[in-house]
Amino acid sequence: MKRKLLAATAVACVGAAWALDALAQAKPETLVKQRQAAMTLQGKYFGPLAGMAQGKLPYDASIVQRNAGYLDVLDKLPWDGFDPRTRDVKSAALPAIWNEPAKFREAQERLQSEVSRLVSASKGGDEGAVKAQIGALGKACGNCHENFREKQ
Amino acid sequence: MKRKLLAATAVACVGAAWALDALAQAKPETLVKQRQAAMTLQGKYFGPLAGMAQGKLPYDASIVQRNAGYLDVLDKLPWDGFDPRTRDVKSAALPAIWNEPAKFREAQERLQSEVSRLVSASKGGDEGAVKAQIGALGKACGNCHENFREKQ
Repeated sequence: MKRKLLAATAVACVGAAWALDALAQAKPETLVKQRQAAMTLQGKYFGPLAGMAQGKLPYDASIVQRNAGYLDVLDKLPWDGFDPRTRDVKSAALPAIWNEPAKFREAQERLQSEVSRLVSASKGGDEGAVKAQIGALGKACGNCHENFREKQ
Repeated sequence: MKRKLLAATAVACVGAAWALDALAQAKPETLVKQRQAAMTLQGKYFGPLAGMAQGKLPYDASIVQRNAGYLDVLDKLPWDGFDPRTRDVKSAALPAIWNEPAKFREAQERLQSEVSRLVSASKGGDEGAVKAQIGALGKACGNCHENFREKQ
């Protein structure tokens, strides 16, 4: 009981705004902001890997392994943000996302599967295999953008 | 050799823009966008936990465990974005971030430590303990915002 009271008090002090946000159904604009945040971070952690695979940045196995681990979480975060309620919010999302949901889902799964393979490869010591897998992951990103994102 | 060529070709096709971004030193505006993205996602996954701890959302142990795991990665991502080069970019960051770096670092470590404790608690079955730890984590968020973020 004492613990419950402590918990309630602590949360009441600092969590009010978050809890209110969570209580209300998320606004479409919030969903778009959140999914774009996940894409931004995927770009942050994939970018250096692409540079390494192209030989434009020095290869650093520890950064590859760290970023692959981050991507393995980040690649799960954007998708619930593509709620049909967001269709009218300005973004680069193409209608194909909602018109071809199975294909969109398949593109997400391909991404997650290529990231998993990169996580595995990054734990081995074969730089060539890691670079090839970075290439395969980049193709999964590109494939989804090609079909579901407005040309940038 | 063949594998290297394949890797180079695949990456050349799809990774060019990312690699270029990674090659150039990130622009201050990009760093701010990336750190704000990490904060946005921390809010996305902490919000429902605060709601549960306050009894305003039904308690769901599997969501707590999932979100705690996500937060355990997300809590590592914002900090390199607080580069001194971003001081002049409009944001809610207070000068204390750069004037009191040890205190800022300590606030980050407190957050990470409270998230770690939540990850552990969420694997046990003690709902009261989990809610108390959500409260402690909320206080770590609030403590850092209080000292290092403009009042919202």
